[in-house]
Amino acid sequence: MPTSKRRHILREVSGGATAPCGFEAAGVRCGLKDKGPDLALIYSVSRAAAAGVFTRNVFQAAPVLITKERVGREPVRAVVVNSGNANACTGARGHRDALRMAEVAAEALRVPPRSVLVASTGVIGEPLPMRKVVSGIRRAAEALGPEGGKEAERAILTTDTRPKSVAVEFSLDGRPVRVAGMAKGSGMIAPSMATMLAFLTTDAHVAPALLQSCLVKAVEKSFHRITVDGDTSTNDMVLLLANGQAEAGKVTSRHGLVRFQAALDRACTYLAREVVRDGEGASRLIEIRVRGADSEQDALQIARTIAGSPLVKTAMAGGDPNWGRVLAAAGRSGVEFQPDLVELRLGGVRVVREGAVCSHDKKAARRAVAEGEVAVTLDLNGGEGAAVVWTCDLTAEYVRINAEYHT
Amino acid sequence: MPTSKRRHILREVSGGATAPCGFEAAGVRCGLKDKGPDLALIYSVSRAAAAGVFTRNVFQAAPVLITKERVGREPVRAVVVNSGNANACTGARGHRDALRMAEVAAEALRVPPRSVLVASTGVIGEPLPMRKVVSGIRRAAEALGPEGGKEAERAILTTDTRPKSVAVEFSLDGRPVRVAGMAKGSGMIAPSMATMLAFLTTDAHVAPALLQSCLVKAVEKSFHRITVDGDTSTNDMVLLLANGQAEAGKVTSRHGLVRFQAALDRACTYLAREVVRDGEGASRLIEIRVRGADSEQDALQIARTIAGSPLVKTAMAGGDPNWGRVLAAAGRSGVEFQPDLVELRLGGVRVVREGAVCSHDKKAARRAVAEGEVAVTLDLNGGEGAAVVWTCDLTAEYVRINAEYHT
Repeated sequence: MPTSKRRHILREVSGGATAPCGFEAAGVRCGLKDKGPDLALIYSVSRAAAAGVFTRNVFQAAPVLITKERVGREPVRAVVVNSGNANACTGARGHRDALRMAEVAAEALRVPPRSVLVASTGVIGEPLPMRKVVSGIRRAAEALGPEGGKEAERAILTTDTRPKSVAVEFSLDGRPVRVAGMAKGSGMIAPSMATMLAFLTTDAHVAPALLQSCLVKAVEKSFHRITVDGDTSTNDMVLLLANGQAEAGKVTSRHGLVRFQAALDRACTYLAREVVRDGEGASRLIEIRVRGADSEQDALQIARTIAGSPLVKTAMAGGDPNWGRVLAAAGRSGVEFQPDLVELRLGGVRVVREGAVCSHDKKAARRAVAEGEVAVTLDLNGGEGAAVVWTCDLTAEYVRINAEYHT
Repeated sequence: MPTSKRRHILREVSGGATAPCGFEAAGVRCGLKDKGPDLALIYSVSRAAAAGVFTRNVFQAAPVLITKERVGREPVRAVVVNSGNANACTGARGHRDALRMAEVAAEALRVPPRSVLVASTGVIGEPLPMRKVVSGIRRAAEALGPEGGKEAERAILTTDTRPKSVAVEFSLDGRPVRVAGMAKGSGMIAPSMATMLAFLTTDAHVAPALLQSCLVKAVEKSFHRITVDGDTSTNDMVLLLANGQAEAGKVTSRHGLVRFQAALDRACTYLAREVVRDGEGASRLIEIRVRGADSEQDALQIARTIAGSPLVKTAMAGGDPNWGRVLAAAGRSGVEFQPDLVELRLGGVRVVREGAVCSHDKKAARRAVAEGEVAVTLDLNGGEGAAVVWTCDLTAEYVRINAEYHT
């Protein structure tokens, strides 16, 4: 968490992903989804260093394979993204289509083809209707502008109910530097990977290798700590473009790096929480805090098991302070601990002490899990290991969405 | 699977858990559940060898701790089971209550207290209303009889919609031997443990150590291969009592052992599948077969990941042949394999070849997942490893049940 000093240094600004200097965006409709914009373009007026974190799924969509290969190798000028079709499990044709998306964007923008990254999200296993996509890319290139972020944010969504963006500013050498981004969920969100699409931009000037290590650190504590349903998609990626257009100098000093990392952490954590809050069918954001474990790894494993438990998540959907299900999930996480030392709090209400239910205000416990944000704090009273994971409740609406979504 | 020869040897018989000679049972209502019987007693007319497999959850309910300690140490005469209250996370009082349940049953049955095993299932963290329980145990002891299995089967249920029992017979030395059992689900069913309550009985004469190894083998391929929601409860146990009342001799020969194991496997697999078929809110039984993996362990890990995927399970609830979600789940299982060799069949319809969608009869694929039993077969075309896991679909009814069940 940012200290009060950092809070002073970091401030939120408006403008979303195009808030940093030298970024433009556009979102247009090309007809892949039933309605709304479904093709986005993010453009940097100058060459940008790029960093990326990608799905670890064995099945990786064509755009993931292509983008992964380009990130970090050469400067990037644009990212082209479509929603409504994942271009995954589409074989050689899918690979050609993804390459063609980058080429068409490059032509329209008059930049080298290899400076364009590609991302897709949506239905798996359908070939892309390339005529629609090509026309969409050309129109998006014409529509580019600093105000285009709003439409781009909408164009990357699938079952999300609202766009998600953030922009923060800090100062370096007395001059402002901005870090911003947009993200989309909202199913197939799992902790073992980047978990969705997120596109971050910054006008900071950062060397590519350093940029990558900053992104990995930020993702580890944000996108890797959320889960909606435990499923990791074939298309997940988080990209960060740094074009150095801020007037501040290059980020090299330890001091500058700390500030940049804090800004990036803030942007990633904000977007990650927003993805969970807007998880499919979600009515509540649930923060699972585990402490007193032997190690951070142990705490994380327990927190993830609780966050992944359908029984915990359905209890939360019902506004039920069912602490027994939280303990049962912790107990099957595979981590050894002393059950009779365990304490559990729902919001501020201690419901379990020394591993068994303790007398508590049942109405207060019920209120604690009926809020839009629920805090579950499990203290093992063992070592110093602690971790936080965010998830959402599991509602009948989640089932409805996923039983009816395609194919 | 039984060969046709074994099929000939093994036959199903009626009578449920009291089908083997020398077993009696009863189920009565003592008022722990809203309605129906909620206290069961299983009784052997003679001393029985006992074997058990128990939850691996760190939090283990008082009856689990007590029963675990007794099984295999001394001969067993009875099992007392209540539903509606798990007697878990209830501290020292819970431990005393579970011991008292065994004592009261022992008094009523005039058998040694340590020859009675205890099991509980239901809400976690509430003390048992012992006055009701004690009265129920005494009435159950009076009601015992060879026909009492039916009521006992009902008395162990919680959110199950129907009782589950099985009885099979084989012959040894030309004389019949029976293996039978009853089980209850239907939430908190997970592959890492015995996953629910199951009580098996046999009139075979088997030494305790051998009995335990037979049970472990049978459970490994049955109850350990099912999942409803990935949650392992604090109370899971599978018990097997062997009282040797059949007229056949002691099971010692390799020949006899093979027959006994086949009968036990059949009974356990039947009950395990029934538990899944009656999983909370389930409308379909889904059989996930993975083959062509480098090892059985790899195949099992992939099958379990698919079986645990909420996206696969909700697609099945919607009767949607969404093979992309099956591949995506396989791909995040943590097992390495060649994605471009993968074949996938839904029922008899091949929908994926060489890792990408292939032309197929879409109506036939849709029909294949609209049945009450759905077969999903993933062939990695690698090694010889194969495994089968059973699960059920994830419906809005599952969420309703678990959002509303207590506390």
